[in-house]
Amino acid sequence: MSALTDALFTDAEIARHLTAEAEIAAMLRFEAALAEAEAMHGVIPAEAGVAIAAALRDLTIAPGDLAAPTLAAGVPVPGLVALARARIGAPFGDYLHWGATSQDAMDTGLVLRLRTILEILEARLRHLVGTLCDQAEAHADLPMAGHTRSQIATPITLGLRIASWLAPLARCLDRLAELRPRLLVLQLGGASGALSVLDEAGPAVTREMARRLDLALPEKPWHTERDRLVELGNWLGLVSGPLGRIGADLILMGRTEAGELHAGQGGGSSTMPQKSNPVAAEALVTLARRAAGYAGMLQAALIHVEERDATAWAVEWQALPELIVGAGAGLGHAQTLAASLSPDPEAMRRALNLQGGAVEAEAMAFALAAEMPLGAAQALVKRAAATRPAETTLAAHLSTLCGQDGLTPPPEIRHGPAPSRTLVETAIAQARARLA
Amino acid sequence: MSALTDALFTDAEIARHLTAEAEIAAMLRFEAALAEAEAMHGVIPAEAGVAIAAALRDLTIAPGDLAAPTLAAGVPVPGLVALARARIGAPFGDYLHWGATSQDAMDTGLVLRLRTILEILEARLRHLVGTLCDQAEAHADLPMAGHTRSQIATPITLGLRIASWLAPLARCLDRLAELRPRLLVLQLGGASGALSVLDEAGPAVTREMARRLDLALPEKPWHTERDRLVELGNWLGLVSGPLGRIGADLILMGRTEAGELHAGQGGGSSTMPQKSNPVAAEALVTLARRAAGYAGMLQAALIHVEERDATAWAVEWQALPELIVGAGAGLGHAQTLAASLSPDPEAMRRALNLQGGAVEAEAMAFALAAEMPLGAAQALVKRAAATRPAETTLAAHLSTLCGQDGLTPPPEIRHGPAPSRTLVETAIAQARARLA
Amino acid sequence: MSALTDALFTDAEIARHLTAEAEIAAMLRFEAALAEAEAMHGVIPAEAGVAIAAALRDLTIAPGDLAAPTLAAGVPVPGLVALARARIGAPFGDYLHWGATSQDAMDTGLVLRLRTILEILEARLRHLVGTLCDQAEAHADLPMAGHTRSQIATPITLGLRIASWLAPLARCLDRLAELRPRLLVLQLGGASGALSVLDEAGPAVTREMARRLDLALPEKPWHTERDRLVELGNWLGLVSGPLGRIGADLILMGRTEAGELHAGQGGGSSTMPQKSNPVAAEALVTLARRAAGYAGMLQAALIHVEERDATAWAVEWQALPELIVGAGAGLGHAQTLAASLSPDPEAMRRALNLQGGAVEAEAMAFALAAEMPLGAAQALVKRAAATRPAETTLAAHLSTLCGQDGLTPPPEIRHGPAPSRTLVETAIAQARARLA
Amino acid sequence: MSALTDALFTDAEIARHLTAEAEIAAMLRFEAALAEAEAMHGVIPAEAGVAIAAALRDLTIAPGDLAAPTLAAGVPVPGLVALARARIGAPFGDYLHWGATSQDAMDTGLVLRLRTILEILEARLRHLVGTLCDQAEAHADLPMAGHTRSQIATPITLGLRIASWLAPLARCLDRLAELRPRLLVLQLGGASGALSVLDEAGPAVTREMARRLDLALPEKPWHTERDRLVELGNWLGLVSGPLGRIGADLILMGRTEAGELHAGQGGGSSTMPQKSNPVAAEALVTLARRAAGYAGMLQAALIHVEERDATAWAVEWQALPELIVGAGAGLGHAQTLAASLSPDPEAMRRALNLQGGAVEAEAMAFALAAEMPLGAAQALVKRAAATRPAETTLAAHLSTLCGQDGLTPPPEIRHGPAPSRTLVETAIAQARARLA
Repeated sequence: MSALTDALFTDAEIARHLTAEAEIAAMLRFEAALAEAEAMHGVIPAEAGVAIAAALRDLTIAPGDLAAPTLAAGVPVPGLVALARARIGAPFGDYLHWGATSQDAMDTGLVLRLRTILEILEARLRHLVGTLCDQAEAHADLPMAGHTRSQIATPITLGLRIASWLAPLARCLDRLAELRPRLLVLQLGGASGALSVLDEAGPAVTREMARRLDLALPEKPWHTERDRLVELGNWLGLVSGPLGRIGADLILMGRTEAGELHAGQGGGSSTMPQKSNPVAAEALVTLARRAAGYAGMLQAALIHVEERDATAWAVEWQALPELIVGAGAGLGHAQTLAASLSPDPEAMRRALNLQGGAVEAEAMAFALAAEMPLGAAQALVKRAAATRPAETTLAAHLSTLCGQDGLTPPPEIRHGPAPSRTLVETAIAQARARLA
Repeated sequence: MSALTDALFTDAEIARHLTAEAEIAAMLRFEAALAEAEAMHGVIPAEAGVAIAAALRDLTIAPGDLAAPTLAAGVPVPGLVALARARIGAPFGDYLHWGATSQDAMDTGLVLRLRTILEILEARLRHLVGTLCDQAEAHADLPMAGHTRSQIATPITLGLRIASWLAPLARCLDRLAELRPRLLVLQLGGASGALSVLDEAGPAVTREMARRLDLALPEKPWHTERDRLVELGNWLGLVSGPLGRIGADLILMGRTEAGELHAGQGGGSSTMPQKSNPVAAEALVTLARRAAGYAGMLQAALIHVEERDATAWAVEWQALPELIVGAGAGLGHAQTLAASLSPDPEAMRRALNLQGGAVEAEAMAFALAAEMPLGAAQALVKRAAATRPAETTLAAHLSTLCGQDGLTPPPEIRHGPAPSRTLVETAIAQARARLA
Repeated sequence: MSALTDALFTDAEIARHLTAEAEIAAMLRFEAALAEAEAMHGVIPAEAGVAIAAALRDLTIAPGDLAAPTLAAGVPVPGLVALARARIGAPFGDYLHWGATSQDAMDTGLVLRLRTILEILEARLRHLVGTLCDQAEAHADLPMAGHTRSQIATPITLGLRIASWLAPLARCLDRLAELRPRLLVLQLGGASGALSVLDEAGPAVTREMARRLDLALPEKPWHTERDRLVELGNWLGLVSGPLGRIGADLILMGRTEAGELHAGQGGGSSTMPQKSNPVAAEALVTLARRAAGYAGMLQAALIHVEERDATAWAVEWQALPELIVGAGAGLGHAQTLAASLSPDPEAMRRALNLQGGAVEAEAMAFALAAEMPLGAAQALVKRAAATRPAETTLAAHLSTLCGQDGLTPPPEIRHGPAPSRTLVETAIAQARARLA
Repeated sequence: MSALTDALFTDAEIARHLTAEAEIAAMLRFEAALAEAEAMHGVIPAEAGVAIAAALRDLTIAPGDLAAPTLAAGVPVPGLVALARARIGAPFGDYLHWGATSQDAMDTGLVLRLRTILEILEARLRHLVGTLCDQAEAHADLPMAGHTRSQIATPITLGLRIASWLAPLARCLDRLAELRPRLLVLQLGGASGALSVLDEAGPAVTREMARRLDLALPEKPWHTERDRLVELGNWLGLVSGPLGRIGADLILMGRTEAGELHAGQGGGSSTMPQKSNPVAAEALVTLARRAAGYAGMLQAALIHVEERDATAWAVEWQALPELIVGAGAGLGHAQTLAASLSPDPEAMRRALNLQGGAVEAEAMAFALAAEMPLGAAQALVKRAAATRPAETTLAAHLSTLCGQDGLTPPPEIRHGPAPSRTLVETAIAQARARLA
């Protein structure tokens, strides 16, 4: 509950497409295209089309002028139309918004802005995936301890870890390409979505408007078919979630006890001189947690009844912009972090040596299994891990135990080129193919 | 996704306590009280306490001046402290924020504002409960058709319906009284919540600060114990949910087909001259739906690790203010609606006569049951309902069936004083007792 | 909180793929394929591959036998492997699960079952879309009153309403085709997802396993890349939400006051003889509301740290099966409802005549606008609607007003073929193209 | 998606009150009490009351017998009543369920079971709070490094950390005492909640039933006032969240890199011999994450329209039992963990020495501030932390820097009795006061 911190969780470049001013401008683009298309197909006088388009080109309407009528109507369009008609003046003003309904203007106005927003988000996502590919490649042979369920498990490389960050994001590029044609569609349905006023001219006007606005044509008006927008929200969640996972991993790797990987600028404390807090990584986790709340909120808005349901519609107005700016902010933070990854190989080696090098326990068991059943080998290594004296490595202690039991000790575990290298390379190659 | 409509879902009176300016002012109150309490107990020089308190009285810091340091630190306090120390100047500036941590200032600053906000919300809630009591009383004998599972069920009164709106809200007054002492507590813990810097003066300073700020003392610093705030969020949900139910009922009762109850001003359409949309009632439903998303978001923030977890903390910053202004906006809309309830008794009578007056089917069955087993009576009424000719009432048709079967027809159903009157009166009396 | 009602919200055909028994069987399929692939590529002895595959063919393990080891380990696989190794016996039992980790078996076991489940869901979705296409076609010319924001708006047809039900579901067929290749992929990564034990044989074994199980190859093991499963959850939400909207519309159209459309069997009451509750429609809404909670839950599970995060993973175990059986149950209910739609044209006509036929107010205004500015026409119709005497139609009253003002009354509104027919036909055609 | 793991997340002792059998039994208790109360007040024949109570004492109804009628009606009560009436037989069977509605039986049946469930949960919560008090006391002087925002901050004690675990849980005891009287209330309203059938006998019958069932009397029937149940769900969340935080802390403290605190039995791996996974701690986090989803789901169910809204009601049926068994399971895991806390003081000392003992950086700055302004002192310590040679302690390096600058080095930081001791003792005392 800190308005002062908002800047961490928003995105100025994107947010300016979500302002009241941007909303008004986009709705006026809708109205201009509607008038021109209707004039072209004889629904309104040809001069009306010209006059309206000309007038709207220079028209700006201040959000404040719409405040009262918006509160009264619950949507800004009646007020906008009244004001714009007055500005255009007789005799052509009345031809503005001819046969359209508020939701036509608002939804199309939204889609027009989403197109731009998706371009920004895609560019950032591509940039980030590219950077992560570079980093995965650069660190493909840097050994570190893998952790499963918070415990040191077996060796991996930093490259493999980074590859697991980038793969879900790369897949989001595919998903974006798939959803875009479903999302970037014209909304024009009139009062109840039946295009009644336009009558037989409906299809032609619709096609012409879509052409002018460079939007696809929907099967039919989609006032109540909110799956298009919820799908977008889901996609934003599929971006924000994996970003949150990157943040969470960075926080764990940057813990004072680990110190394996740093990124970005640490934040200072108001009282502790030594602190360097992982501000951007934390923000990624926060944004992913917030996205979970909005995902649930948005999903509920699919229950949108009859021909228009303001109770559901207005839920989108809250959840969608938050998901959008959140994803934008997250991509920004992630880019900064990804570009500044600074691993500490020495710290990584320390982790590999913890518990006498128990990170190799699995490998030791499989090495022993060349000479005894795997189950027995695993039991032996488990015993070695449990009884290892503090200053002895697990390998040395295992050798001692083997000697006591008259067994050949396992050969020293020597990793050749990390077995995970191929995996990393494949992930990078497939991601880069998407960037091409 | 319509910034233009935000005003419907926010609350100016409350929102001004959630601005960056209000946040800064509240944190400076914390700092002044801290310095004074520390001076009183010899932690800092007495003159420092006087000087700091004096300086802070006149100090205003513009949010913009904190933007960059807040982005760097993830919290505004390091920047705030640096700026305020500079303004206070040597030699006393350095005694500002002595031994405190960022979260102390932010949480106490929040609690101070929550106190005011809760006063506003409580006043509104009391006003609303009072108005609903009046309306329930005024309409305690106005008959209407009860609906269960969307079907007309048995007769109720408008008063009974309104009583079911007010009872949960009245209970929220009790809940507020219970949670307030848990919520309105000082936060002062220092870096890790151990009050280390204050050492033995800790308890005395804490007591003095709490006294000065008129806050209760917590068991211990509660940096990571976020149940206090989540409990507040839950309470806001328990207010917003029942408000949403009022909105949903008003929407159903105001449907063109029903027209039983109107309230508030109807909203116009951009294309349909006859429309009168239930804008405020819709907003109540929307706010309740949004609250569900925030409830989940906030609950997740209880997983707040170690001595401070910014990833969880920053989730509160989003969810809590939205729940607060949402509840505030909802109480505002609900008050307008409750004060302007305008029932249409004729429309209510029409509903009571639908399906030949089938709303009395249960009563008929129980009346018949004076002479036959209830099961047989219910079966007979069910048969009557299924075979009733269009222009005949259910009562008349049932009489015919009874005659055919040689049975005494049930007496005409004549409701005396609505059996629900006592229920309504009890609900009103208990609610008013809370208002006293 | 009624275990007795569970059957309404689950799906027996699908649920049997989510039982403990099905889980065990699927994991054993994974283990058999792993052994055979490893034997083929020399990782384990050829005889071991044969022996394991043969043994597993007949092996059944009772869930109860895994209860204790599952509680101990948090996952069932260590217990399963121990038991299966014992059953296979020396010398080959130890070669079971060679180089794999618990999550490999569990995730692949899940994916194998998801393949079957998606086939069931897709078949039902296709059936439902087909039925809705038929119904939209059958009722493409049946006039009814469109409702926006709960108020009667302008005329539509039942076919148009149904088209808005089917279009989002038809789009889900496209989405399913898109996500399937991302979802139906092998999971084989070994302890930390680096395929360490398999070393150079990793790629070949992986390919062979995928071939045997008829699964696609992922870029790399995806233990922590849960976007594949969350995308599935999102898809299930995009199915359940529009089903919930169908349910909500059916409830509104079936209200006693409306009676415009009935579907399915009405449910009886324990005390009211006349009741016919919309049980299946209600279930659709409930399932959609539940899905919202699970959507948020699942989204949060994307924050899955390091090489395995049981705290996030186990969240999927709850949310995903609920979303799956919920969607399955919803498709079942929706099919029953869609196949039994029974409109009441007379009731629809009644709604069209409400408020003196105000559903034509927009059309009247546009008709008047042939002779006066639209704004003036809308104002005149609005005045007519506000002053209409009870027994007069809006059209007649408008004519009177026009006469008083010396204006030509608008021609009677006569709808030709519903302007929405083309929209309905396009929606049906595009949906059927997907079914082909 | 693993049915095999369900046992980790459920609670057998509590779940048996949520079975279909328990539900039937509880509803029959409702019916018996209703008949007896109605007989006492002359609503039904006295012999009917005796006969029904006697018959129900021995009656068991198998859930399977209710399956079909429940699917048909959407609630089990019509089927239950029909079956029970038949079993009781003429002439008294028909007096069963006289004047009640399905929801009366289901809600009261639920409340009766909730009473028992809350007793179990409260007993566990008290046990856990007591155990945590003992542990906080036992470890009140065990020093460890506090962590804020994932970085080592300043010294705390294990006792202080544990105190922060127990305080929110202790507060939940207060909250439980507050909500219980709102929750444990009779539900008896008849069809539309107006108690129509009982007419003037309503109040007397209601009082008598409440007396017999030992439940409180509500203001009025609360069919649609679901705040009582959502408040319970919120409370369960306020239990589960802090339990999740304990789990998350245990996971962090038990990381291989830290090893500061272990609890419970570690879980084994299917392939890594050394692993000891924190199974129960993970389960606590999972349960808290799941609770967030259910919190949102339940909140949405407050929008419960008219006199009964099955679409909302059935959402409770899912969310509430999951929250209940989840809290029960969590309390069970937490008890096991709390009772077996096994700190490693040596590991804690290692953390205190990390970064040359930078955990004392704040203390050093304040010590220096005796001789210079705090800001300068903090800057000096910050410089020391940044330039400290690897093998030198921060204290030693700071002394060197002070010497270079001609400053008196700060005295060695010697902690007396931890300043946090009072805080811990206060938290324990206040918690124990609640247990008394």
